[in-house]
Amino acid sequence: MTIADRWLLPDGIEEVLPPQAWQVETMRRTLLDLYASWGYELVIPPHIEFLESLSAGAGNDLELQTFKITDQLTGRMMGLRADTTPAVARMDAHTLNRTTPARLCYAGSVFHTRPASLAASRTPIQVGAELYGHAGAASDIEVISLMLETLAAVGIDNPHVDLGHVDIFRQLTSAAGLNGVQEAELFDALQRKANPEILQYLADWAVAPSPGRMLAELSRLSGGREVLVDARMVFADAPASVIEAIETLETIADNLSAVYPQVELYFDLSELRGYNYHTGVVFSAYLPEEGQAIAKGGRYDGIGEVFGRARPATGFSTDLKALMRLGNGEPEVIRGILAPVDADKTVVRQLREQGEKVIYSLPGQTESARDIGCDRELKLTDGSWQVIPVG
Amino acid sequence: MTIADRWLLPDGIEEVLPPQAWQVETMRRTLLDLYASWGYELVIPPHIEFLESLSAGAGNDLELQTFKITDQLTGRMMGLRADTTPAVARMDAHTLNRTTPARLCYAGSVFHTRPASLAASRTPIQVGAELYGHAGAASDIEVISLMLETLAAVGIDNPHVDLGHVDIFRQLTSAAGLNGVQEAELFDALQRKANPEILQYLADWAVAPSPGRMLAELSRLSGGREVLVDARMVFADAPASVIEAIETLETIADNLSAVYPQVELYFDLSELRGYNYHTGVVFSAYLPEEGQAIAKGGRYDGIGEVFGRARPATGFSTDLKALMRLGNGEPEVIRGILAPVDADKTVVRQLREQGEKVIYSLPGQTESARDIGCDRELKLTDGSWQVIPVG
Repeated sequence: MTIADRWLLPDGIEEVLPPQAWQVETMRRTLLDLYASWGYELVIPPHIEFLESLSAGAGNDLELQTFKITDQLTGRMMGLRADTTPAVARMDAHTLNRTTPARLCYAGSVFHTRPASLAASRTPIQVGAELYGHAGAASDIEVISLMLETLAAVGIDNPHVDLGHVDIFRQLTSAAGLNGVQEAELFDALQRKANPEILQYLADWAVAPSPGRMLAELSRLSGGREVLVDARMVFADAPASVIEAIETLETIADNLSAVYPQVELYFDLSELRGYNYHTGVVFSAYLPEEGQAIAKGGRYDGIGEVFGRARPATGFSTDLKALMRLGNGEPEVIRGILAPVDADKTVVRQLREQGEKVIYSLPGQTESARDIGCDRELKLTDGSWQVIPVG
Repeated sequence: MTIADRWLLPDGIEEVLPPQAWQVETMRRTLLDLYASWGYELVIPPHIEFLESLSAGAGNDLELQTFKITDQLTGRMMGLRADTTPAVARMDAHTLNRTTPARLCYAGSVFHTRPASLAASRTPIQVGAELYGHAGAASDIEVISLMLETLAAVGIDNPHVDLGHVDIFRQLTSAAGLNGVQEAELFDALQRKANPEILQYLADWAVAPSPGRMLAELSRLSGGREVLVDARMVFADAPASVIEAIETLETIADNLSAVYPQVELYFDLSELRGYNYHTGVVFSAYLPEEGQAIAKGGRYDGIGEVFGRARPATGFSTDLKALMRLGNGEPEVIRGILAPVDADKTVVRQLREQGEKVIYSLPGQTESARDIGCDRELKLTDGSWQVIPVG
């Protein structure tokens, strides 16, 4: 073990130094204040839970991402949360147990065994908001709006938003009578937009013409608002729930465009991110120059079920460290006042209470005020303590 | 797996619900602002590090408390931080690498395999401040003062402070020529204040009269300021470094009493908390009614050494969740304004920017404004949107 080894942090695990750490703190405050002003109440979910609680409602997606540890008090397996939503869902379903809609928000680290993408952090500081107890498009519009306000608050005014709806694929595979294995194979091909493969599957499985044609069209339906017009025609004979999904996307698009005309909306009806988890609209915000989504979310109505109470739910999350990197904030550098340790404590206290940074000059310290970030000094001048600029 | 099992949190692991979670957030902001006003810069150390970095300088004390996980990218062992100080020491020694004193502060969860005491949390939200690069009593006074300001900021004005100095025991055992095993045995007996055992050890080991007598007196030297007067006599013939330790305690006591006359000071010269870790003054703050220290700290000059650069260091930490429980703050409940989803977005935005909480009434929602925590409603009245108290 060399000294250099001890300096090393594991890949994808970061520390945040001054002054960026204060920038993260400022951003955190801005966002939590924003959520409070929309009526979202802060919760602090635990970082560690029993394994079965952590992956609740999220299926296998989270299991592989979850660090496992043994509870030395019981011998049971616990895990580090890889996502905050299951814990918030438990709070809504069980601990809070309200009958009215619950608006909850959070900010805290989550932990991933492997980075979600090559350059991703394994310890993002996840910040997000969730709305429980309302099933209509209005709550989706509310959380997508709050996601856009989140980005605007850190200086990201013109993200692209991708919208999808997992019910379209789910209802079509059901109408086509596909079994679980077939659904998974088709899902996989669709994610790769592997059209020849999709057509081959549909032929092999002898899927009836109408759902077959609609499933084959899915991967083509991505682009601007015209996609929804197309979809109306393609899905004219689809089950009612598919039409309803399209209508939901139209309502959301209309409302967002009215309030956020600068935000470009894209639609991708084969977008099935978190398919095991989501039950309705899914959405992601992108910056033109970034491959990875900067914020994302969706509807996950079933999530409370494993806790005994499934309420409709929709929400989004993002990563404070990524926002710091991509937002246009600058680290604020506040110059301080250097004070001798024997300075009048009342004067020092007053200066601090007025928002000044007062740093004691410790005995034996030879550095100048400027060396330690001060542009003024507290000095006893003509019998009173005065703040004097340094030369 | 029943539903009730999924609700359960592991012992010593808590969630914080509204409105207490916001109280924790408010406290966090108050304290980080306080530290900033004293010139302490915020850092965000990682929650996960390679094992050898995590226990750096802290010896075995932290190893048992540390949850171990495997890095799936390298196969190496990593751990969850059980204390924040080793990571901050690494930042000071290596990443920041300043020659001037560095004042650093932090707020974030730490993780313990077992609770430090019966009722203790296994996931405290540790908040603290550390001063690197100054060796004298002035830096100890500064961090103890900041600890007292921390407690005062959450409404704890009259803690007791216990002060000790690990160098006294260390220098006396060295003067007595004890080997490592003997030192450990005596240390253990002293922690239990087992006087007959101590005397037996000193006789068995044929310790010379002068260091023997002083070691035998150590466990008696606890109480108020008079302990230091006693110690001056008891240690009259002790090595110079022991006298210096007493002088340091006197200087600290004089300075603290002048600024914080309401804080009762206790001295315990056999107080050796974190003996493997600390190198000078150690201190803890207590509330009269609480058995466990509410905040604690001390000097740990050697800690940066494993990172290649040992600078003098002193600091303290406390737990935000304990402060919330013991401080006199009340959760703040802000009543909101209920607004229809088709309300003028500009009016809603303005209200929020003025600090109001505006909650949308979602379509189909039948609850009254009061049911969801609102005492006012936004209504279109005589052609303009107005805020009207609810009946």
